[in-house]
Amino acid sequence: MSQISGSPIKVGIVGGTGYTGVELLRLLSAHPNVALQAITSRQEDGVPVARMFPNLRGHVDLAFSAPDKAGLDQCDVVFFATPHGVAMQQARELLDKGVRIIDLAADFRLKDVQVFEQWYKVPHTCPDILAASAYGLPELNRAAIRQARVIGNPGCYPTTVLLGLAPLLEGGSALVDTATLIADCKSGVTGAGRKAEVHTLFSEASDSFKAYGVSGHRHHPEIVAQLDRMSSAPVGLTFVPHLVPMVRGMHSTLYARIRPEALDIDFQALFEARYADEPFVDMLPAGSTPETRSVRASNMVRIAVHRPGGGDQLVILVVQDNLVKGASGQAVQNMNLLCGLPETTGLEQVAILP
Amino acid sequence: MSQISGSPIKVGIVGGTGYTGVELLRLLSAHPNVALQAITSRQEDGVPVARMFPNLRGHVDLAFSAPDKAGLDQCDVVFFATPHGVAMQQARELLDKGVRIIDLAADFRLKDVQVFEQWYKVPHTCPDILAASAYGLPELNRAAIRQARVIGNPGCYPTTVLLGLAPLLEGGSALVDTATLIADCKSGVTGAGRKAEVHTLFSEASDSFKAYGVSGHRHHPEIVAQLDRMSSAPVGLTFVPHLVPMVRGMHSTLYARIRPEALDIDFQALFEARYADEPFVDMLPAGSTPETRSVRASNMVRIAVHRPGGGDQLVILVVQDNLVKGASGQAVQNMNLLCGLPETTGLEQVAILP
Amino acid sequence: MSQISGSPIKVGIVGGTGYTGVELLRLLSAHPNVALQAITSRQEDGVPVARMFPNLRGHVDLAFSAPDKAGLDQCDVVFFATPHGVAMQQARELLDKGVRIIDLAADFRLKDVQVFEQWYKVPHTCPDILAASAYGLPELNRAAIRQARVIGNPGCYPTTVLLGLAPLLEGGSALVDTATLIADCKSGVTGAGRKAEVHTLFSEASDSFKAYGVSGHRHHPEIVAQLDRMSSAPVGLTFVPHLVPMVRGMHSTLYARIRPEALDIDFQALFEARYADEPFVDMLPAGSTPETRSVRASNMVRIAVHRPGGGDQLVILVVQDNLVKGASGQAVQNMNLLCGLPETTGLEQVAILP
Amino acid sequence: MSQISGSPIKVGIVGGTGYTGVELLRLLSAHPNVALQAITSRQEDGVPVARMFPNLRGHVDLAFSAPDKAGLDQCDVVFFATPHGVAMQQARELLDKGVRIIDLAADFRLKDVQVFEQWYKVPHTCPDILAASAYGLPELNRAAIRQARVIGNPGCYPTTVLLGLAPLLEGGSALVDTATLIADCKSGVTGAGRKAEVHTLFSEASDSFKAYGVSGHRHHPEIVAQLDRMSSAPVGLTFVPHLVPMVRGMHSTLYARIRPEALDIDFQALFEARYADEPFVDMLPAGSTPETRSVRASNMVRIAVHRPGGGDQLVILVVQDNLVKGASGQAVQNMNLLCGLPETTGLEQVAILP
Repeated sequence: MSQISGSPIKVGIVGGTGYTGVELLRLLSAHPNVALQAITSRQEDGVPVARMFPNLRGHVDLAFSAPDKAGLDQCDVVFFATPHGVAMQQARELLDKGVRIIDLAADFRLKDVQVFEQWYKVPHTCPDILAASAYGLPELNRAAIRQARVIGNPGCYPTTVLLGLAPLLEGGSALVDTATLIADCKSGVTGAGRKAEVHTLFSEASDSFKAYGVSGHRHHPEIVAQLDRMSSAPVGLTFVPHLVPMVRGMHSTLYARIRPEALDIDFQALFEARYADEPFVDMLPAGSTPETRSVRASNMVRIAVHRPGGGDQLVILVVQDNLVKGASGQAVQNMNLLCGLPETTGLEQVAILP
Repeated sequence: MSQISGSPIKVGIVGGTGYTGVELLRLLSAHPNVALQAITSRQEDGVPVARMFPNLRGHVDLAFSAPDKAGLDQCDVVFFATPHGVAMQQARELLDKGVRIIDLAADFRLKDVQVFEQWYKVPHTCPDILAASAYGLPELNRAAIRQARVIGNPGCYPTTVLLGLAPLLEGGSALVDTATLIADCKSGVTGAGRKAEVHTLFSEASDSFKAYGVSGHRHHPEIVAQLDRMSSAPVGLTFVPHLVPMVRGMHSTLYARIRPEALDIDFQALFEARYADEPFVDMLPAGSTPETRSVRASNMVRIAVHRPGGGDQLVILVVQDNLVKGASGQAVQNMNLLCGLPETTGLEQVAILP
Repeated sequence: MSQISGSPIKVGIVGGTGYTGVELLRLLSAHPNVALQAITSRQEDGVPVARMFPNLRGHVDLAFSAPDKAGLDQCDVVFFATPHGVAMQQARELLDKGVRIIDLAADFRLKDVQVFEQWYKVPHTCPDILAASAYGLPELNRAAIRQARVIGNPGCYPTTVLLGLAPLLEGGSALVDTATLIADCKSGVTGAGRKAEVHTLFSEASDSFKAYGVSGHRHHPEIVAQLDRMSSAPVGLTFVPHLVPMVRGMHSTLYARIRPEALDIDFQALFEARYADEPFVDMLPAGSTPETRSVRASNMVRIAVHRPGGGDQLVILVVQDNLVKGASGQAVQNMNLLCGLPETTGLEQVAILP
Repeated sequence: MSQISGSPIKVGIVGGTGYTGVELLRLLSAHPNVALQAITSRQEDGVPVARMFPNLRGHVDLAFSAPDKAGLDQCDVVFFATPHGVAMQQARELLDKGVRIIDLAADFRLKDVQVFEQWYKVPHTCPDILAASAYGLPELNRAAIRQARVIGNPGCYPTTVLLGLAPLLEGGSALVDTATLIADCKSGVTGAGRKAEVHTLFSEASDSFKAYGVSGHRHHPEIVAQLDRMSSAPVGLTFVPHLVPMVRGMHSTLYARIRPEALDIDFQALFEARYADEPFVDMLPAGSTPETRSVRASNMVRIAVHRPGGGDQLVILVVQDNLVKGASGQAVQNMNLLCGLPETTGLEQVAILP
């Protein structure tokens, strides 16, 4: 999509009442090239957005509108900040009108329809669009994103795990044992969304810590599919997500065993070289241990590589804000690519610390 | 100070290792008219600022420098993000070089030297400069700030209490009983600073709530002095601060008894009119209860006015981010005024919610 | 009820799936004189209690049972840990079988049926039982509790406010202005119960602070009714509850203006004398500021009295654990009284700090 | 030590001002067989313990006393709740008087003096006593503890990792690959103690998550030494500790690869059998994910075993309260063993949930 003319990008958001919705609004309302056109919510039709999210008072004047009245087909780009299953229902109609689609849910993340249906328990209604869509992780897939009309924005966990492992697997390099990868991941509670549920009540989740989804999590096949794409050897991944009593933030601790023939590699240098030109991946100096708050409310990922005792076990630490680089910020980054804007436009906020 | 030329404002920060320091850096690094010149810290001389505050990586390249090597006298504006007692030692020398000073500590908050010395236990070393300084609460004192060479940036508690009570006392109006005012205030833990102390450890302050300083707090005389300035009747204020287990945020619950002759006043309308043109004071609709997170990391104050049961007791709720409008954001707002810039320059960030 | 025989008290709990339910189970499972007979939940019928509340594994072997199969009429005491409106439906039948009732909801808190119906929006179905019930605040009403067959366990806010103000109003003493009392109260999030609701999600309530219910809260008439009972002068109370990002704990900051004729009173001594023999009220030394964590998981209330600047404004600080002294612990205390046991039986746990 | 006489155990605590100290006091003040004799603190000499820890008001009447005046040599058991290096200085003199010693620090955890000195940077002053001491993890070492005169109470991390891996390694069984064990551990902030330090301030540690000590942590050699004792094959362990924004609690996620010849083992049954008779180890049903709050303030460890996808990767989840089973509760458990009391005496509290 050309931005030569300089006229603002007309943007619509489907499903603006969740956390990825309000975060899109925060970012887009300050984006210099965006004109917010519509935010849909069947249930909140007519309610000013800023009444639900008072941080937006003075920044977003729109009211929620019912989907059919929202004029989404007049937009240049429509974001779906909805549960899975919604974007694929509306994609064809919007595409026919020339609208580009960025889905923050899972409809366009898994190329294999069978895997999608197994994990999400709904039939995929537009496999052809899925086949033509791009997986929206710019650091791994930038060229395809630029050309795509539909983007499947990655899951929050996959973003950290893929960025943390890519330098080790890309290009079929045989640096680590790909069959025994481990991702021990920890997420703030916003990762569970804004739905009223007992287990994410403050009184349940505060001052406590637990694992969940050990026997199977939907982000597992997504991660494995992308690792498989870059690896020449078969990939085996153990993935254990945990819930941290914090609002935002994700910390992934990744374990990979160095193959004998790669024991002489300088992994710090390898990672630094890989991400030298990436505006949103910050390789930390050797020995660092990144805090999630160092990226709070920013689109940055910070990575540190460790090799305890100089042995054959690599430990990679990755932090991101799950609502920004793990969701809405990455979606805006994808929009920038899609629209020919500098990739960092509207995404250069300093993280909030403390 | 004229900004006609458009050349950037050269800014120095004395004492950049605390929370008001890093928050100044966050705001100033994104300010379109500022060139950061120096950040001093005797102890961290030579250490890159971003090593201490990793959120600043990629945004602030400066290293801390020893005060004498910092070239502060070449700056247009110097902020003091130091403990009290530092700014008054260095003020005269800087003023002589034409530097403007904004002190985030208490040296220029209390016009009465005796009161200052009673509460801060140090002699005031430049009463003449104090006399010429301006109290930096723009909503109450904008004209003086514009002309000042030294600004005493208000305390965090005073900012909320004064903005919450001003419409009731200003201009000698006799709307409430000024002798029985109550301010029940609650602050996040960053209000206590970044000093290593047992009582602000996570393990001490988390999952708990307490009052402190009930028998006397340094912000009490500051509030009373400003209320006295605007009130025609003598002011009596009971002020009880409390510590909330949250990082940022301040919530003041103010109680004022309506005088019999003012019982017909529409206080909602009164407040709305008073703050209609203020960019950083947001009067909420009647019946609202503002959350501190609605202003997190923004320079906004939100106020709600209640009159429970329609009786003679007013309850005013005021929230701010103690590090922004309660400290560093307000300091930047003062800098903008001082330098003839639009007051909101660099301060229009959307609050981070959730 | 006689405990002469020494046989254990047979106890049933109606509605054991909420926080007051699990807290009753924690306390009663360790009570030396109690035999837990039944815990009802229509929805969880057959589910082991310890599956829902894993802290009870090894301590409570019961499963939830449907109310009609629970054999409640075989119990000596039945606790209602239900929403309001349930206890009054079942009270008469149980009383007819000789069962004593302790209701942790509001059905037997407000003697005035009209006031009850105005605030709780349901008709009261057994005004005669209400009239004969006792308000279960032992420190104010011990004699009546001992004789009662039905006890209305106080609300959490009323417990703190009444204990904090009683020494000033009891016996018709005219020590403070009863018309201008203020209770600025702060509660942990468990006060809102275990119901799935958006506003008490971790992601909504954490790292934030707000007031709520300023225009009217159900505990207001309850407090006023009890204050009226002890005061000779008319009572006016402004009550503002707030939500604190902590799991358990309540802190009430109470403001009362000393009447001119009482300015010479030693209020510290007055409070100490009043509560000298109370096992669950701990008067702190002058100048103290109690933390809520100092009573976490214990049945203790701690109180401090302040008179800032020696003026005519009293500030009383009261802390409790809202789930213990504010609910389930107080209910057990009432059971002990009802059953002729030492009042502290099963309630002498040390608070958990840190 | 015989408890035949039934006279109470005279107990002293050296260094009672930290978190393990106050937790010992909470547990011991309610222990039916203990008479607290002395709590030492050079700095707080004469200060009532309950002034520092108000939860103990009404439960502990002692004041801190200087070590030389404390009469420790009159005690039956002395606990050292001190930094490492203190117990070994005082051990011989106390042992000579017949006092038993339980050290909650590291002086008697590592049998290999060289390893101790490498990690703790001080010479060990009593290798002979060290050689005769017992490692105080009752589930692994009960017989030795019963006979010991000096007990090295385990570190918090080792307790969880050892209990989680023991069933796989004990008796030289070759169930998993012992060379590639991984322990991804998460601790609440009390694990860092009550010392005033910047990185454990509320404002630093709240609402954030990070790893630390990746390149080396003192608990690593302690864990490896104990694993080596039970394993017939060489042990290799990668250990990554993380800091969780919660007060108490520890969650260890352990990864072990099943050896080909053990793929048919029922690991759930193996663990259940191993811990069937352990009062403080609760094996959860298959598929469980334990929360740290389920053991808050109790001496219980809860363990769940997972085998994601039925593959060859075992994932073991272990939770404990780091201050109880991870420190002071385990110390009391050891005292019970040492003194011939039932092991659970004084340790049967129900965990605090929520």
